[in-house]
Amino acid sequence: MLNSIKESPLYPIVNPRSIAFFGASNNFFAMGTNQFTSLRALGFEGTIYPVHPKEEQVQDLKAYRSVLDLPEVPDLAVLVVPTKIVSEILEECGQKGIKQAIIVSGGFKEVGKDGVEREQELVEIANKYGIRFLGPNCIGVANPYQKLNTTFLQYLGVPGFIGMASQSGSFVTQMFNYLSRLSLGFSTAFSVGNEANVDIVDCMEYLGACPNTKVIALYIEGIGRGREFVEIARSIIPYKPIVAFYVGGSETGSRAGFSHTGALAGPDQLYNGVFHQSGVIRAYSIAELFDFCWVLGCLPKPRGARVVIQTHSGGPGAAAADSCGREGLELPALSPETLEKLAPFIPNTGSINNPVDITFTKKPMDYFSDIPKVLLEEDKADILLIYFLVPSLMVKRALEHMGLSEDQAIEQSGKMIDAQCKSIARLLETHNKPIVGYTFRSLQEHFIKSLLNHGVPVFPGPERAVRAIKASMQYSDLREKILASTGNG
Amino acid sequence: MLNSIKESPLYPIVNPRSIAFFGASNNFFAMGTNQFTSLRALGFEGTIYPVHPKEEQVQDLKAYRSVLDLPEVPDLAVLVVPTKIVSEILEECGQKGIKQAIIVSGGFKEVGKDGVEREQELVEIANKYGIRFLGPNCIGVANPYQKLNTTFLQYLGVPGFIGMASQSGSFVTQMFNYLSRLSLGFSTAFSVGNEANVDIVDCMEYLGACPNTKVIALYIEGIGRGREFVEIARSIIPYKPIVAFYVGGSETGSRAGFSHTGALAGPDQLYNGVFHQSGVIRAYSIAELFDFCWVLGCLPKPRGARVVIQTHSGGPGAAAADSCGREGLELPALSPETLEKLAPFIPNTGSINNPVDITFTKKPMDYFSDIPKVLLEEDKADILLIYFLVPSLMVKRALEHMGLSEDQAIEQSGKMIDAQCKSIARLLETHNKPIVGYTFRSLQEHFIKSLLNHGVPVFPGPERAVRAIKASMQYSDLREKILASTGNG
Repeated sequence: MLNSIKESPLYPIVNPRSIAFFGASNNFFAMGTNQFTSLRALGFEGTIYPVHPKEEQVQDLKAYRSVLDLPEVPDLAVLVVPTKIVSEILEECGQKGIKQAIIVSGGFKEVGKDGVEREQELVEIANKYGIRFLGPNCIGVANPYQKLNTTFLQYLGVPGFIGMASQSGSFVTQMFNYLSRLSLGFSTAFSVGNEANVDIVDCMEYLGACPNTKVIALYIEGIGRGREFVEIARSIIPYKPIVAFYVGGSETGSRAGFSHTGALAGPDQLYNGVFHQSGVIRAYSIAELFDFCWVLGCLPKPRGARVVIQTHSGGPGAAAADSCGREGLELPALSPETLEKLAPFIPNTGSINNPVDITFTKKPMDYFSDIPKVLLEEDKADILLIYFLVPSLMVKRALEHMGLSEDQAIEQSGKMIDAQCKSIARLLETHNKPIVGYTFRSLQEHFIKSLLNHGVPVFPGPERAVRAIKASMQYSDLREKILASTGNG
Repeated sequence: MLNSIKESPLYPIVNPRSIAFFGASNNFFAMGTNQFTSLRALGFEGTIYPVHPKEEQVQDLKAYRSVLDLPEVPDLAVLVVPTKIVSEILEECGQKGIKQAIIVSGGFKEVGKDGVEREQELVEIANKYGIRFLGPNCIGVANPYQKLNTTFLQYLGVPGFIGMASQSGSFVTQMFNYLSRLSLGFSTAFSVGNEANVDIVDCMEYLGACPNTKVIALYIEGIGRGREFVEIARSIIPYKPIVAFYVGGSETGSRAGFSHTGALAGPDQLYNGVFHQSGVIRAYSIAELFDFCWVLGCLPKPRGARVVIQTHSGGPGAAAADSCGREGLELPALSPETLEKLAPFIPNTGSINNPVDITFTKKPMDYFSDIPKVLLEEDKADILLIYFLVPSLMVKRALEHMGLSEDQAIEQSGKMIDAQCKSIARLLETHNKPIVGYTFRSLQEHFIKSLLNHGVPVFPGPERAVRAIKASMQYSDLREKILASTGNG
């Protein structure tokens, strides 16, 4: 593992002080212009030099006819230009002394034989000048900590803890919105495209050393350097988890990957072996990839597989119990001490088995404070899984009926929600056990969103919550195996 | 199968002209009051008689001290009262001549031996007076076509096509919000509770005959009358599909179900056998239950298993292809005629394999009109699976840069969105093939929401879309088998 990201040749690609941008113009429907607009929208603080053969100015920046005219040697060149002029521009970048590039343009290995030759030409130019480049056929990088985003879509939300290396650009740029809805964000994300020069292994190595990255997400259509993948992953696992979504394992997925990035996939079994040996957790969808990262990145590691379910609704409790059973998690019976402590909070309609089904709380706050506290104190509870409805709804309605204006009712129920969320967040801090929520409400509702903002993951439905908990346990196992085999256990 | 819902003893329960309501008061935090408020909020047009031992008036309605004082015999009694007085009130309802009841109160079979006896008492009273009742330990019904909702939460959205019978009240009332976010709704939904008198089979029979119900959803913790379940399901399947989410198959799910409604579950294998024999499709989560109902209720039946994927992003295309492969769906190669017709729309960076990866369309409208039209015309395509981003985002940004005000840009991009959604909806009408969308955006965004409102299902991620397509094919198979075995095939 690298000691510092500064040792990585990728460092200047995601932390550039200055960028030469090829392909932005005043045509706002052009791809290059879009990427240029994203870059500026995030407020990149370094210098940007648009290079354009005809324009005097691109948007409000002075444009240069040629990279050779630039007043300095930029750290990074971004190329969003027609296929046929890519090599010529890369050559000029080399002449100028630029050492890092992102080649967005497509039309290379992914389109077949001619493309392969064109791609080889890029590699040769890069080797001649000592250039390291991402792509071609990629959309570059996002490093929100540096206000850097070279992709199509605007970066949304806050800088986060998920480091990503992806063989699909969409799974970088189109996830900004997705992650921000979960109150998550990228630390640094790479779209690697055809991996002609920099590959997913290089990016993984960078992310392993990146201090903002708590968990690494990979989207994989095929791994080129298998041995290095295993080696570098194993060096990272003791420090942070890695989750991979691999689509090449089915015949149809493999074919689609090939025409997408020219990746050569292998059968599921082979890749499962590689992932297992590497200590990498496999996800089977994009949703799972980020679900797993969520729990792995923001919760303490569970000490075991024993889950206590807290609910006020029988059906959602039974569904969660069923899901735990299917994934091999245990629902321990509660100890007599816990049952005694719970008793005052549970009406006679409730059930103090596990799931703990409150049915109805006279003091709504109990559900968010004393009840989960008692459950977290239970020795046999490794993980607390809580069902969340939106308790404020009925309270708001009651307050309105009691004569409060709608504004007052919203204000009062808002205060209640804040207190409830803070209480759960505090329990997460004081007890060192994972608390995972699930709901059928929108994650964008005030109450749920507020939980997310307090670092409590809440999943749409129990199944996703349970799978994510399972992934978290899997990481502990994989990590221990690697530590044991390297003599560090 | 019933010829008409009017033949069902449940008809007056979900279509009452008048209701006696026990347990609503002027305490707005009481459960009964909440349910009473929901009932009135939906605008029930029949007469409501609150019955309360002390109140002169409940909210703005005259209250009666006893059901015996009511000026008429109501069609339905709703009881949300303490356990110990339920039988007494039911007895009085019988004396009054009321023939239908919903018993919301809990504290019966689900709490153990004493409860079993109390429940038996209710059954005897009902038998004595010829009363049919739902519950106890349920939350009643929602029939939005009759503006009837006896549950805790306000009915949201529009009357829909999903008929539900559920052994969990939460999976009725807490789904109003969930379904409305998908632009779906219930036709009629029953919470059956402990099934002391009316059970899930009775409800299924009613929904089989209900003209507003296109598909039946069941939430099951255990089936009491197995033989009748199979028989009635088989009589319905030729006319409409049935989907069941069963949680009793795992040991933990079975235990949770027992303490929830006292249901006796059986092993997965047994229930899978029952479902298969009945022609019922099994779902493994609430999300799946409604995903399957969605596609089954609003799309034409696919003629086969051949899917064509349309995308403008390689990663999402590959993920969908992988998902199809895992679920046994085929991705046929397109015919030479189709390839020829597509060629003008696909830039040289695109791919016209299947997935059809457009990468970039110069005319955004093509993606919603000519391209899917060509793909639907392909003989080898049974189903069209389309990836949706939000194309208007970049267009809006471009328009703003071109000097339009933000309002003008929103208006223009809004018009574009409407045209795009209408175009997809039209293709659904003119070609008799299922079109299923998937996205990673929020389903509440203007563009996606508008597709949902036009009857085009759009799933969060390809995996759920593909599983729902699979369920739709499964229905065709199950239906054919039943028709063949009954000599109607």
